[in-house]
Amino acid sequence: MNVLRAGILGATGAVGQKFVELLEDHPWFQVSALVASDQSAGHQYKDVVNWIGTASIPKLIASMEVLPLSDRLPCDFVFSGLHASVADHAEPNLAKAGYPVISNAKSFRMHENVPLLIPEVNPDHTALIRHQDWQSKGYIVTNPNCSTVGLTCALKPLHDKFGIEAVQVVTMQALSGAGYPGVSALDAVANVVPFIGGEEDKLVNEPNKLLGTIVDGQLHMETLTISPQCNRVPVLEGHLECVTVKLKSNPSQNHVRQAFNDFVSPIAELDLPSEPDRLIHVFDDERFPQPRRHLNLGNGMTVSIGRIRPCEILDYKFIVLSHNTVRGAAGGAILNAELLVKQGFLRSFTS
Amino acid sequence: MNVLRAGILGATGAVGQKFVELLEDHPWFQVSALVASDQSAGHQYKDVVNWIGTASIPKLIASMEVLPLSDRLPCDFVFSGLHASVADHAEPNLAKAGYPVISNAKSFRMHENVPLLIPEVNPDHTALIRHQDWQSKGYIVTNPNCSTVGLTCALKPLHDKFGIEAVQVVTMQALSGAGYPGVSALDAVANVVPFIGGEEDKLVNEPNKLLGTIVDGQLHMETLTISPQCNRVPVLEGHLECVTVKLKSNPSQNHVRQAFNDFVSPIAELDLPSEPDRLIHVFDDERFPQPRRHLNLGNGMTVSIGRIRPCEILDYKFIVLSHNTVRGAAGGAILNAELLVKQGFLRSFTS
Amino acid sequence: MNVLRAGILGATGAVGQKFVELLEDHPWFQVSALVASDQSAGHQYKDVVNWIGTASIPKLIASMEVLPLSDRLPCDFVFSGLHASVADHAEPNLAKAGYPVISNAKSFRMHENVPLLIPEVNPDHTALIRHQDWQSKGYIVTNPNCSTVGLTCALKPLHDKFGIEAVQVVTMQALSGAGYPGVSALDAVANVVPFIGGEEDKLVNEPNKLLGTIVDGQLHMETLTISPQCNRVPVLEGHLECVTVKLKSNPSQNHVRQAFNDFVSPIAELDLPSEPDRLIHVFDDERFPQPRRHLNLGNGMTVSIGRIRPCEILDYKFIVLSHNTVRGAAGGAILNAELLVKQGFLRSFTS
Amino acid sequence: MNVLRAGILGATGAVGQKFVELLEDHPWFQVSALVASDQSAGHQYKDVVNWIGTASIPKLIASMEVLPLSDRLPCDFVFSGLHASVADHAEPNLAKAGYPVISNAKSFRMHENVPLLIPEVNPDHTALIRHQDWQSKGYIVTNPNCSTVGLTCALKPLHDKFGIEAVQVVTMQALSGAGYPGVSALDAVANVVPFIGGEEDKLVNEPNKLLGTIVDGQLHMETLTISPQCNRVPVLEGHLECVTVKLKSNPSQNHVRQAFNDFVSPIAELDLPSEPDRLIHVFDDERFPQPRRHLNLGNGMTVSIGRIRPCEILDYKFIVLSHNTVRGAAGGAILNAELLVKQGFLRSFTS
Repeated sequence: MNVLRAGILGATGAVGQKFVELLEDHPWFQVSALVASDQSAGHQYKDVVNWIGTASIPKLIASMEVLPLSDRLPCDFVFSGLHASVADHAEPNLAKAGYPVISNAKSFRMHENVPLLIPEVNPDHTALIRHQDWQSKGYIVTNPNCSTVGLTCALKPLHDKFGIEAVQVVTMQALSGAGYPGVSALDAVANVVPFIGGEEDKLVNEPNKLLGTIVDGQLHMETLTISPQCNRVPVLEGHLECVTVKLKSNPSQNHVRQAFNDFVSPIAELDLPSEPDRLIHVFDDERFPQPRRHLNLGNGMTVSIGRIRPCEILDYKFIVLSHNTVRGAAGGAILNAELLVKQGFLRSFTS
Repeated sequence: MNVLRAGILGATGAVGQKFVELLEDHPWFQVSALVASDQSAGHQYKDVVNWIGTASIPKLIASMEVLPLSDRLPCDFVFSGLHASVADHAEPNLAKAGYPVISNAKSFRMHENVPLLIPEVNPDHTALIRHQDWQSKGYIVTNPNCSTVGLTCALKPLHDKFGIEAVQVVTMQALSGAGYPGVSALDAVANVVPFIGGEEDKLVNEPNKLLGTIVDGQLHMETLTISPQCNRVPVLEGHLECVTVKLKSNPSQNHVRQAFNDFVSPIAELDLPSEPDRLIHVFDDERFPQPRRHLNLGNGMTVSIGRIRPCEILDYKFIVLSHNTVRGAAGGAILNAELLVKQGFLRSFTS
Repeated sequence: MNVLRAGILGATGAVGQKFVELLEDHPWFQVSALVASDQSAGHQYKDVVNWIGTASIPKLIASMEVLPLSDRLPCDFVFSGLHASVADHAEPNLAKAGYPVISNAKSFRMHENVPLLIPEVNPDHTALIRHQDWQSKGYIVTNPNCSTVGLTCALKPLHDKFGIEAVQVVTMQALSGAGYPGVSALDAVANVVPFIGGEEDKLVNEPNKLLGTIVDGQLHMETLTISPQCNRVPVLEGHLECVTVKLKSNPSQNHVRQAFNDFVSPIAELDLPSEPDRLIHVFDDERFPQPRRHLNLGNGMTVSIGRIRPCEILDYKFIVLSHNTVRGAAGGAILNAELLVKQGFLRSFTS
Repeated sequence: MNVLRAGILGATGAVGQKFVELLEDHPWFQVSALVASDQSAGHQYKDVVNWIGTASIPKLIASMEVLPLSDRLPCDFVFSGLHASVADHAEPNLAKAGYPVISNAKSFRMHENVPLLIPEVNPDHTALIRHQDWQSKGYIVTNPNCSTVGLTCALKPLHDKFGIEAVQVVTMQALSGAGYPGVSALDAVANVVPFIGGEEDKLVNEPNKLLGTIVDGQLHMETLTISPQCNRVPVLEGHLECVTVKLKSNPSQNHVRQAFNDFVSPIAELDLPSEPDRLIHVFDDERFPQPRRHLNLGNGMTVSIGRIRPCEILDYKFIVLSHNTVRGAAGGAILNAELLVKQGFLRSFTS
């Protein structure tokens, strides 16, 4: 297989930097275009980025020239780490220009023809791409919001086996979810902010799209009732969520645990480079998972679950931990692109 | 009124120190006995305490000699900041010796004849004291666990007006709730620990005792179904709780807000020194309350509520903030003692 | 004495808010004008301020209308919490318009005719006011940078008694020193930023002005050699500084300690409302002072010193803690204004 | 080369866990013995360790049986992560029993016949081993205290080129340096503790041993005057140090920078597995290095330097960052063992 040339939109932002970091040494994709604002364009990447990662900027990337946004980019497809306000226009324009756009932005997540994708959850949703009519080979595929990912991965095995009716979820979300500079230190240190703008709506809607089914090429949304409460806590990375579910059937606690442990990724046989050995890891120690300790399971692509126990009101409660900037953002988008390659949606322009 | 002489059991511990701090300049109580372990006894308080407060040790207290635990203490009553393991024996012994014991320990909170008391919630529960048969004037009165207090104060107005059937509560609890040294810094910094030993049981049981009714001198527990999930977050003081309630009647959101705002403390006319102007403060700003900013409302005795809104599954959800070491521990116990004075249960030995 | 009417410039900023907080219940000054940017002007204070304090907005202030910057303000003098970029022009304009400007901004601190003032250190420097020729009764007086204050207060007794030649100082400065939003949470949590723009220059120069002498009405700067290294640490309030001094004479360690303990404020007899009982508090416990525990000594106006011991290279080393937003900003400015009242520089317009 | 079998003393402690983590996949060493206290002995490692690492316990290690301390361990040599109180006796006993002891404990660091070793700084000090007379093949080699390592690595190039006379150093040390549970969260969050017991003495003495020379098989200590001030800051890993040096010669700032950049490790040609590409990395960005961002350079074995500039009092100042639990503890000890292999001091028992 030829290596595909990837562009990164919003390459100097927090998500863009994570794309750069995760794509270093990627076996299938090579970063060939770093796209940022007009004032950064024309400069070397290292001179305009405020690099917040803990690893160094990859050497080849550091000296690359940053490009302005345009519909002529030297790449086969793009990852988008754009803010929604820019993505609203830029992503359709690039799709029209023939580029597959693998986006982390929220702009088109809920669009009926745009797949909202977690490869282990709904790999068949890429069928929606065929409805996208940009009069070109281009299209848009999105990954969900960082707080949606962990929740939906945890719901998937239960929904498959027992049917879920309702979900209560209280999130304790990491500071990195707000980007950089994001949250003020004076709001963050030794404090909790019990509100994150727009976040709860995403948690109500996105899981129902992700768990929906494709019938005759059309998406049928699921209809779980979801009640979210979102909080920002002084954690650097890793969203922890307290989840309670009401099920349609009446499984034992052991069956619930078993459902998590038995879950087999529907794309396991594809051997995607970024797919973790296990989507879900269940902890028995009631103190676990914890953001700082268990964040990096499966290179940040595994979702951790703990404290499975009956709920006094609904049926079962448990906690979920996922890596918000890897599984919940750049890593999820890269896995999406890998799936698209295997499904034949993504190939080099020249092929 | 004569000033009553108060002893503090466990005076060198975190709760004991808070008693010392809050009793400085108290108009009715004067600290006359500092009781700690045998190895501290005989030394000046300032030489054996690892003072963690942000204010200085009150001058008169600093040089007081620490006393060993005994049934002959130079005081009219005692505040107990003992660990349960010590309180199990020490508190009954002191009650037998004739001392009113105003305790923050968990040992006797659920005992049928021991009042579990929040003066604004169930001031009539002190009637249970009469069932305590220590063959002396002594008795035990307790205040609830720090995570129970905020929740119960918030439930009280809703329960009075609408009847509560069920309560989901996810807590984000401050580090000071674990005492000193308590949580390791390596577990605390940039992390969440999604488990606090024994805490969830207290949240299931204590509110039902607090909201119970006295009929013919006997306590009838309430029967709310409560489903708690407890987390330790890197906050110094202030427990934040995400609460969802199922009500028996069907009030509008405005009526719910109104119930909080209209709540009148049943002991308002007693003018207790530690009672705040308002038990409950409702915030309109959806970012509030926050632990660091709103902790000290009403000198730490007011409970803050925010983000009142309908729940997609149960009826209403909102957040509650309370000061865990003031309202939730020493301050609550002091308010209990004040109530007992006004009710005639607490007076000087010599009177 | 009549109460003076105080305006606050930059009233919605972090320093402005601290002025509002500290002036509540001030016996001599009453806030009569809240001045902020044009987009805030015309609105009630509570509706445009992002109040970051832990106490509530004082009631009378909350509903005051914010005024735009002008040279006709309804007040007798102004406190300035302006950024230097605005203060550069605004402060001289107000001085020309006849207003005494008590400023926390850096703009005119090093101007030869503008007093840089710590009342306990150089109260006679107000004599410089007479050289300010704004063709009006107006003038500018400044307080030093937050990291300068603690250091200079600590140096003063040693310099008076032993003469200081050189000072090494490494600061660990609180996040609140950067204002709001200030430092990004991602730079602050579990991190140290070993650089604060412009800070080290201030530490080199300001102490030499503060310790300078007025001869024939002119300021003669001191000539201490100061070598600073400034760091931002994840502390909310309280700057801690590791100081090493080279002295001209050769005192014993006891004499050094004695110099701190014996220091008598030259303005003690003025009974200024904001002056603490002791400018300097010396700790014997080698673990103290600590920002979180000892920040509020003297209502945040006392400077704490600990770990006095010989230095292997220079003469003595010790640590200094001061409250950066009280003593180091708004509180320091208010004390300056109080001194100016007693010295006759500040009176009501109508008198 | 045969793989050597390594024992780990204190295997369940914080340092012991780091040994386990870093030795996973080590090309030369294989963990064959996990030694811990008698109450842990006989159990599987995973059942008695409170694993604080962010990676999982290596699979093979997790189920190994923990052994009690004895002089018959199934290994060729031991790494010691023991507390000094235990190491005092245990390490000589093991040396007498014939085991090379590569220790992180402080017990024998300053013993005249025990090498205190940083392979890039003083690899020839292993000659001291020959003076150790345990009547066996056993010996003890130590690595320095975590705060000493970064400082000494930074001093080495300057001392080689210019000669150092005196060193001022103010440390800002990470919480992990105190082990687990170590510092209380209530002392750590939003606070600085300006004292670390015993730490300053180590900084005065250890660099002088490390920079000493072997003459006729005997160690001659260096005589740098070192003045340390040690602080604990709320950082998880990475000690940052503000260093000021007085030099014997008078180099330009460029020469100082050049000395760091030109430093060539005397053991570079040995290709030790844990040796980083560069011992020293110099940052130009004046905001760098920062603990959280630059901790892991060279897999935690590189020492970072920044802000090189003239000092107003001594000659030059700069900051140093080093990874306290890798370079400053377990990683340093492993590198020591690797050097000992290449020098022929460490081989399998059977060879």
